[in-house]
Amino acid sequence: MLTKETISQWFMGLQANICQALEQADGKASFVRDQWTRQGGGGGQSNVIQDGAIIEKGGVNFSAVFGETPDAILRALKLEKADFFATGVSIVLHPRSPMLPIIHMNVRYFEMTNGVWWFGGGIDLTPHYVNVADASHFHQQLKKVCDKHHPSYYTQFKTWADDYFYIKHRQETRGIGGIFFDHLAATDEISKAQRWAFVQEVGSAFAPIYVYYMNKNKDLPYGEAEKNWQLIRRGRYVEFNLVYDKGTKFGLDTDGRTESILMSLPPQANWLYNHQPKPESQEAATLQLLKKGINWA
Amino acid sequence: MLTKETISQWFMGLQANICQALEQADGKASFVRDQWTRQGGGGGQSNVIQDGAIIEKGGVNFSAVFGETPDAILRALKLEKADFFATGVSIVLHPRSPMLPIIHMNVRYFEMTNGVWWFGGGIDLTPHYVNVADASHFHQQLKKVCDKHHPSYYTQFKTWADDYFYIKHRQETRGIGGIFFDHLAATDEISKAQRWAFVQEVGSAFAPIYVYYMNKNKDLPYGEAEKNWQLIRRGRYVEFNLVYDKGTKFGLDTDGRTESILMSLPPQANWLYNHQPKPESQEAATLQLLKKGINWA
Repeated sequence: MLTKETISQWFMGLQANICQALEQADGKASFVRDQWTRQGGGGGQSNVIQDGAIIEKGGVNFSAVFGETPDAILRALKLEKADFFATGVSIVLHPRSPMLPIIHMNVRYFEMTNGVWWFGGGIDLTPHYVNVADASHFHQQLKKVCDKHHPSYYTQFKTWADDYFYIKHRQETRGIGGIFFDHLAATDEISKAQRWAFVQEVGSAFAPIYVYYMNKNKDLPYGEAEKNWQLIRRGRYVEFNLVYDKGTKFGLDTDGRTESILMSLPPQANWLYNHQPKPESQEAATLQLLKKGINWA
Repeated sequence: MLTKETISQWFMGLQANICQALEQADGKASFVRDQWTRQGGGGGQSNVIQDGAIIEKGGVNFSAVFGETPDAILRALKLEKADFFATGVSIVLHPRSPMLPIIHMNVRYFEMTNGVWWFGGGIDLTPHYVNVADASHFHQQLKKVCDKHHPSYYTQFKTWADDYFYIKHRQETRGIGGIFFDHLAATDEISKAQRWAFVQEVGSAFAPIYVYYMNKNKDLPYGEAEKNWQLIRRGRYVEFNLVYDKGTKFGLDTDGRTESILMSLPPQANWLYNHQPKPESQEAATLQLLKKGINWA
């Protein structure tokens, strides 16, 4: 039987494997590992990398927490009081070079003592400059992962990501999207073991995908103009995470560990008033591609 | 009779006067003036200063907008459909030097076609380093303004500011507070004209207060350590504005002009994982003073 302990153990191992792969690819910095406990029950480990050769700031967080289910969740699902258990891995990496994309991944499992459970997660990529070949490659990798598990997963979860990773007040997507899924329970057609196999494959896909871009793009040249644009795009990343991201909001609302939740914020972000890229520039071309519904795969 | 046009005209003049006073005190940069119209009705003017000798980035915004009252407001007040008119001036200034405080001011008037109206606003100061004499001076100035109009204003609005300008997930106040007030309507004791006289005096107090700090602190020496701390504190300012600030949330939710709303964000902000100032440092002393309930006046 697939227990919460099995899932949580696997996530812990995933965190260790991803950190090892990233340290190896970065070649300079190591993760600092911070264990923490949660007052209401459980805890986690935040692994944070700073000042790497390639990764300027990033976090690979594992947590397994439990306690009384927050009222907001119970109300939304029209359920009576119950305890919950939640475990997962969350990652955000901010590269030093503007020629590398920011990446985010999350895989998570949630269950309650009333028998309700689900998986959630996703991966999305936020290039500072959208390179069409890189964007296609990213979506093709995710499509491969999805297609192995269900013919409708990629289309469904890609659309979900377009809608989720959207900065409404800017009318821009955060980046080129990816996949996003939530509340994946068992159906007549799909078992819990099959959902889990999919989530594991999403988690396992992360390191090879990002290491590919690290190796491929780390030596691309850039100058001050590209760096300035990166800092502005990081500002948008901050806006998304603090204004819209449900995980961040939920974490801050429920007195989660602030430093672990906000490890997603960049080392530096800039805001210029009403910045508009020059027409026909690389920056303008990127903005044109921050739209929903592009068929990248 | 005190009409919405009178109020709005006065706010427009306030914006002009404040910009003139700040340009004069800065001595280098001028405000860029951007007029904009709102699809639903009305518009405004965003005056933005960047790369000044003293002010690194700041906005002094005026707006006068009207249209259908958002449902959220009607529901909260249990009122039927009505049109609204809202006008005000909003300011945030980010100084170049960490030895000068960030300042925020807002004065606003809101009325509906059902006859309901109120004033709101406030001023608060966010020093990167809390200097006790400067903090006392600030609160004394505000207390003077308040005391001229009602003996209970200062205590009431100071407490309100402590509660409002609070970063819950950091368990820190944003700065040393100031005054905050909202939904100031007429009472048996206080007329609309008296409320308005108070709000005008708050607006008029802004320029002298900030120019005092500009002149007093602009030449204080600082180094890289102080600059780094400033960038971290600006990160907290971003966190407050994007996570908690009601004006920002309301603006973004109601499709306000994004660049005017987010002029409050700093030119640059940094996030370090789990940054803790050294014990007994100036930075640690400042953190100790970012608490509610300090009697600064």
